[in-house]
Amino acid sequence: MTYLDHAATTPMLPAAIAAMTEAMAHTGNASSLHSAGRRARREVEEAREAVAAAVGARPSEVLFTTGGTESDNLAVKGIFWARGAADPRRTRVLVSAIEHHAVLESAEWLVEHEGAELVLLPVDAAGRVTPEALRAALAEAPDTAALVSVMWANNEVGTVNPIRELVAVAHEFGVPIHTDAVQAVGILPIDFAACGVDALTLTGHKLGGPYGAGALLLGRDVAAVPLLHGGGQERDVRSGTLDTPSVVGLSTAVAKAVADAPQRVAALATLRDDLVARIRAIVPDATLNGDPGDGVIDGGPSRLPGNAHLSFPGCEGDSLLMLLDAQGVECSTGSACTSGVSQPSHVLLAMGATDAVARGSLRFSLGHTSTAADVDAAVEAIGAVVERARRAGAPRRRAAVQA
Amino acid sequence: MTYLDHAATTPMLPAAIAAMTEAMAHTGNASSLHSAGRRARREVEEAREAVAAAVGARPSEVLFTTGGTESDNLAVKGIFWARGAADPRRTRVLVSAIEHHAVLESAEWLVEHEGAELVLLPVDAAGRVTPEALRAALAEAPDTAALVSVMWANNEVGTVNPIRELVAVAHEFGVPIHTDAVQAVGILPIDFAACGVDALTLTGHKLGGPYGAGALLLGRDVAAVPLLHGGGQERDVRSGTLDTPSVVGLSTAVAKAVADAPQRVAALATLRDDLVARIRAIVPDATLNGDPGDGVIDGGPSRLPGNAHLSFPGCEGDSLLMLLDAQGVECSTGSACTSGVSQPSHVLLAMGATDAVARGSLRFSLGHTSTAADVDAAVEAIGAVVERARRAGAPRRRAAVQA
Repeated sequence: MTYLDHAATTPMLPAAIAAMTEAMAHTGNASSLHSAGRRARREVEEAREAVAAAVGARPSEVLFTTGGTESDNLAVKGIFWARGAADPRRTRVLVSAIEHHAVLESAEWLVEHEGAELVLLPVDAAGRVTPEALRAALAEAPDTAALVSVMWANNEVGTVNPIRELVAVAHEFGVPIHTDAVQAVGILPIDFAACGVDALTLTGHKLGGPYGAGALLLGRDVAAVPLLHGGGQERDVRSGTLDTPSVVGLSTAVAKAVADAPQRVAALATLRDDLVARIRAIVPDATLNGDPGDGVIDGGPSRLPGNAHLSFPGCEGDSLLMLLDAQGVECSTGSACTSGVSQPSHVLLAMGATDAVARGSLRFSLGHTSTAADVDAAVEAIGAVVERARRAGAPRRRAAVQA
Repeated sequence: MTYLDHAATTPMLPAAIAAMTEAMAHTGNASSLHSAGRRARREVEEAREAVAAAVGARPSEVLFTTGGTESDNLAVKGIFWARGAADPRRTRVLVSAIEHHAVLESAEWLVEHEGAELVLLPVDAAGRVTPEALRAALAEAPDTAALVSVMWANNEVGTVNPIRELVAVAHEFGVPIHTDAVQAVGILPIDFAACGVDALTLTGHKLGGPYGAGALLLGRDVAAVPLLHGGGQERDVRSGTLDTPSVVGLSTAVAKAVADAPQRVAALATLRDDLVARIRAIVPDATLNGDPGDGVIDGGPSRLPGNAHLSFPGCEGDSLLMLLDAQGVECSTGSACTSGVSQPSHVLLAMGATDAVARGSLRFSLGHTSTAADVDAAVEAIGAVVERARRAGAPRRRAAVQA
């Protein structure tokens, strides 16, 4: 199979598997006081230092979680609650329209359940939150903003946001800002201290580490009410027995992914540009969604180098996906899929795409194991697949119009 | 080292490590639609069926979580919110006084934050919640109870609760009941359907599986508001990318632990009784806390067979622990330890112990790798250790009185 879905999950690095397998053979709860417990604690703290060093944070700012969803939920809800406790007027949650569901649905839950007001920050046609859009939203009611959350790089179309500029605007208004950097860590240059964000989400399985292991980087002075209560681990902000093997696997992967990123960025962009150019040569009306990828933001590319998100007019994305899968090419529609019911991507709709364009999209995402042969395989399959999807799609669209 | 702290965490079963290591080498997000995703999904669903079969639940009642803390938080908060949404009078949370902090602090957070009223169910001198105590608490205000939470077996003193009787009482009042069965699954006979509880917490690392993997068994008709929002995995009650390797490791361990439990119960009880008798022969004023262990509850022993929880008059538990560790014997004080500050166990205090007795306790907990040689090592060390701890403890207690 040709795996071009690295944005969904990327193969674990052999070094991370080896480190975890070794750690699994040790016994010892990192909260226990005896020798075995202290050894586990040492492994956790060394991992914390390694993660901190790789992303420019202090070790005490690294809170280990079970991954992106938990980190996002903790950041959005935890900071909201803490802000509200300090000043009950702080009820507005400003979230970009292209966030991952873990952020969007956390914010929506705060609306339904905790009296929050949700402000969806608009994006431009490339899927980017501009500093002007954030400033306008904050200026509407400057004293009621609880927090801002804007992802570092979008998981569907790969557009990178100008995080440093957004931080400057948020801080002008004295409002903390969280960023979901799940797609960015290990590929874009990220320095937690230098960029100034108050909270940052990262996760293992997007960068060669394990599932079920991530972190919330939380600035020393940023208050967050816990989401999981219990033993008081992780600065009392995140309880639960520390998963030493996964933490070790995570830190191994973060360190290696960050160290290798500069070379990988160049190689992936070359492969990706080749993939896009050759697909468009075969399917001339296919369009690349998002940023063209030739710009620079905060010292890195303006689009994730492994991301190719294309719309194929007249096709259903799900049909394309399944037909490509049958040809041995694995990719994604890039749209949210809940309980098997696919819906047009909220990201593309926020960028101004029509429902039909949003439905007819595919995301190819390349990663650390991708090769020129993978690109060849996708290119070889795409022509016949698009043709077949168009034949299949046309009558169904007519039926839908009649219904 | 002699490891006698299996209640804190127990060594992973080699079969679980092997299954996880193999699963980590596969790539594929269980929510992806392509072949790799569908294979991961198949692995998850087979694991769900295996866990369900081992504990007498339907597969759809098994919600995978990241462990005991998350399951407890989800059960307590999620059921509280769902009950409140259906009937705003349902604000009372009835929780036993000997719960794990994950339950207790979840309930306390609901008080501070969500207007709940916390009712601490008393326990008897053995640390057991009686059906009479639950009935009395429910009868006080029958229309305002949101939920009951009583752990299956206590993690510190090993006392088993009469869950079936407690379920009957709770259901008499139409109130759902959750049980933290983290210490019970894989050792006591547990049948989710037959026992009738509405929600049950289990976790991997207490029974030979990985950290970071657990489940909440949630009855089909039991509503719970999610704690983690996002992609809508796990019946929409628990979002977050499924951790396929950990789920596979968990199911491997649950199946094996449950299958082996009957033999293990007998072997552990024999070792434990030998340990207690020989320690008391050497330290005659040492007392066994909790249930004597000779009874039967719901078809299993009335005390966890691997649990020996003893108080040593005139000693500080922390000193005993560190002195034993220096002799190569690893155990626990059995008391909560947050940020290095040890406090007398809330479990022992609820059982009526004095502060001094609570502080002078040790928990030895045996598990699947324990041998007669482990018992010998603890017995050989204990006499000198207690003597030394008494010499060290006496002046400190006087100093505390003067302060």
